[in-house]
Amino acid sequence: MNKRQVIRLLGAILLVEAACMAPSLVVALIYRDPGDAAAMLYSMLIVLAAGLPMRLLAKPKHTDLRAREGFAVVGLSWVLMSLFGALPFVFSGMLPSYVDAFFEAVSGFTTTGSTVVADFDHLPHGCTFWRSFTHWVGGMGVLVLTLAVLPKLTGRTSHLVRAESPGPSLSKIAPKMGDTAKILYRVYAAMSASMFVLLMVFGMSPYDAAIHTFGTAGTGGFSNYGASIAAFHSPAIEVVITVYMLLFGVNLALFYSLFTGSAKDFFRSEELKWYLGMSGGAILICSLCLLPVYGSFSTALRYGAFQVATIVSTTGFATTDFNLWPIAVKAVLLVLMFVGSCAGSTAGGMKVVRVALLFKQGKREIASTFQPRKMQVVRFEGKGVDENMLHRVTLFAFLYVLLVLIGGLLVSLGGQYDLLTNFTAALTCVSNVGPGFGEVVGPVGNFAGFSPFSKLVLSLLMLAGRLELYPILVLFHPSLWHKA
Amino acid sequence: MNKRQVIRLLGAILLVEAACMAPSLVVALIYRDPGDAAAMLYSMLIVLAAGLPMRLLAKPKHTDLRAREGFAVVGLSWVLMSLFGALPFVFSGMLPSYVDAFFEAVSGFTTTGSTVVADFDHLPHGCTFWRSFTHWVGGMGVLVLTLAVLPKLTGRTSHLVRAESPGPSLSKIAPKMGDTAKILYRVYAAMSASMFVLLMVFGMSPYDAAIHTFGTAGTGGFSNYGASIAAFHSPAIEVVITVYMLLFGVNLALFYSLFTGSAKDFFRSEELKWYLGMSGGAILICSLCLLPVYGSFSTALRYGAFQVATIVSTTGFATTDFNLWPIAVKAVLLVLMFVGSCAGSTAGGMKVVRVALLFKQGKREIASTFQPRKMQVVRFEGKGVDENMLHRVTLFAFLYVLLVLIGGLLVSLGGQYDLLTNFTAALTCVSNVGPGFGEVVGPVGNFAGFSPFSKLVLSLLMLAGRLELYPILVLFHPSLWHKA
Repeated sequence: MNKRQVIRLLGAILLVEAACMAPSLVVALIYRDPGDAAAMLYSMLIVLAAGLPMRLLAKPKHTDLRAREGFAVVGLSWVLMSLFGALPFVFSGMLPSYVDAFFEAVSGFTTTGSTVVADFDHLPHGCTFWRSFTHWVGGMGVLVLTLAVLPKLTGRTSHLVRAESPGPSLSKIAPKMGDTAKILYRVYAAMSASMFVLLMVFGMSPYDAAIHTFGTAGTGGFSNYGASIAAFHSPAIEVVITVYMLLFGVNLALFYSLFTGSAKDFFRSEELKWYLGMSGGAILICSLCLLPVYGSFSTALRYGAFQVATIVSTTGFATTDFNLWPIAVKAVLLVLMFVGSCAGSTAGGMKVVRVALLFKQGKREIASTFQPRKMQVVRFEGKGVDENMLHRVTLFAFLYVLLVLIGGLLVSLGGQYDLLTNFTAALTCVSNVGPGFGEVVGPVGNFAGFSPFSKLVLSLLMLAGRLELYPILVLFHPSLWHKA
Repeated sequence: MNKRQVIRLLGAILLVEAACMAPSLVVALIYRDPGDAAAMLYSMLIVLAAGLPMRLLAKPKHTDLRAREGFAVVGLSWVLMSLFGALPFVFSGMLPSYVDAFFEAVSGFTTTGSTVVADFDHLPHGCTFWRSFTHWVGGMGVLVLTLAVLPKLTGRTSHLVRAESPGPSLSKIAPKMGDTAKILYRVYAAMSASMFVLLMVFGMSPYDAAIHTFGTAGTGGFSNYGASIAAFHSPAIEVVITVYMLLFGVNLALFYSLFTGSAKDFFRSEELKWYLGMSGGAILICSLCLLPVYGSFSTALRYGAFQVATIVSTTGFATTDFNLWPIAVKAVLLVLMFVGSCAGSTAGGMKVVRVALLFKQGKREIASTFQPRKMQVVRFEGKGVDENMLHRVTLFAFLYVLLVLIGGLLVSLGGQYDLLTNFTAALTCVSNVGPGFGEVVGPVGNFAGFSPFSKLVLSLLMLAGRLELYPILVLFHPSLWHKA
């Protein structure tokens, strides 16, 4: 392992993290809260003190990174970022326990949005801004951001971006990875800005609008209100957020092709069709099932569409407690929690493309009982898919489900709560959604009651889910640490 | 499709089913219950009336069966057997609703053991014997039995046996399929007889011993007591049943090699090692967790071992209500419900060999991030496993989990009960275990409260689980019914 280059890269990422803390410090200063500002400032200084020597003193013999080092850098960088990102919560007294603060930071960076915050009445503005800003940065990936800012950091970067980006394949927009990263961040920033403006038009304060834009764009779901979106009592805001949640579940590269005039690529995307079909179908079913609850179809549609969008995009904002809804709606939401959104979006879950490929493989497997000798090619986006890729997608799906099961099992070993709570907590963490089923981890609950061990397990699940398993799983593989 | 040959085969299977009803008629006559005997007699006559013309009047041009017809015969035969096998329950008034009776027959043949019987005090002896006898026949497969009895029925029979036998590959003991079927049934009968004798030695009546031997050998789990094995208040009986449940979870072909002197094959079996390791580990964890509940380790071990054995072998007998146990034990049992026992046994679940192959693939996939170019061969039972086989195993595992999810979703659409009940009911049916989690479907509950729609969904899940998905899934594929 090219350890020095790994350390140098991790140092660069920490410097970017320190820079990301600056806006939150400014917010704390604007709200004239000295404790809050001190918490942000001290955290920044500690991150700088750790990152600078790593960046400057590590002298690698060469800047090459092989695949194993790519995975290691990504896995380690997310653990490091969360370890340091937790500091403001501890220093400000918002979450005095470091395990709680770490859970919250992981939940922020991985855009899960599960929270251990129970008291929403005395949140310091700067640290809360930081809490939500981690969503915005984590959605696209800190490493991708680092490459956008420091494109000449390392020789080959495709390993790094591949390991951090969601989905089985990577859309390369520009020949150079650094340029691709820059373009994607521009699209992301433009969409976020438009949402921020719209939220203010419909009556949010700039601070609230920023918090909820970060939560939506990163498909995270942290709010500064205990009641989440329901606190605004504004159907217009609900509609804006519903639409943007669904938008941020789409592959960002597709928006780039839309903006650059190749609308054909956008509308021809097979994954987008599956995504819209699935979301549309789920919205219809849920709205119909909610009709008896809300009386009018328009209200049922508003609640149903919001809830489907918030689950399918793995955001996790709430307008009401879906645990009180009919069981049929809950079952639909549970299945959607596995699927998630499109590859290349900021969302979590198994990704629509994988589920679509699994369906096509299943269909082929059944058909092959009729014609055992004829092996048909599975086609996606108009092209035949390589068998090796299909095999990897299927294995990923299985490992994903296995991780949920093992996670639920480990959380249950703590002995708290019921099976539904524990296993859906594991699912919502692996899929980076936020709320689970049952009172405790539901939309009006929080994760504060879990044991520290369970919180660490769930943190690991969030990281594994966000990075699509392998960058976290390799860290447990002994040969990663061998010299080679 | 060679429809005439399919009909002829289905006719033969119905004749075998009619013959299987004879012992239950004898039992009804011994207990001098005219209503009970009439129910069995009328059912037998109806099955004969349906089977004889199919067997005698269908004149196929040739006796060849292709793979598609093999799957169709297996899928259809299990549906037909259950449709007719339900008749005694209706005629005797044991389960007046035909949907209930069908559910019970499916649960019997698939060796699931989930029951809709709520009143255990007035069970007619003959029909209850039939109910348990379906376990014994269904465990090994009615088609396999038919081939053992009528070996010259059709040209190529390997398609048929492959479609009905559990596990990704088939152990061929003898060159001819009919001989293999005979040998396996002899091993099965000998093991059942030894258990029957032991149960009587420890104080069971011949009738109770037969009922519980059928339930154990088929890994089904129907009992004629509402309290299941707990009704006997006998630790000795519990130990005997624990041991035999674990034995019937082993590939029967391995016992054949043990009996014929090749003990090496038995002890070298890699699947057996995984199975024993997993069961042993689970028993240890559960017994330790149960120590505070039962006080002494020997009692905790007795309860823990019984419960692990009953779940891992997918039998479903009960000695106590595990829903009242610590959450950690329940979580272990939940994971075991997915796995099940060895391929080639009478048990359900995904099968140990598949889970082992999935683990090995997962390990390889993680290792391949280090050495992307080097593709290692996955080895099992000392041999390299074909990539195509690995791909199919992974896809099977995914479809299995998907079926549980979709099944739980459909049951939830009925709107009854909570998510844990509905989804574990689906799991326990797909894995052919018997009890689920939660009060309703737990070891002391029953499935009577589900809507008729949910009962039909669960029946389909049991059939799909027992036949390992494809023979049931192909029935829904339109091209099966095309002429070709």
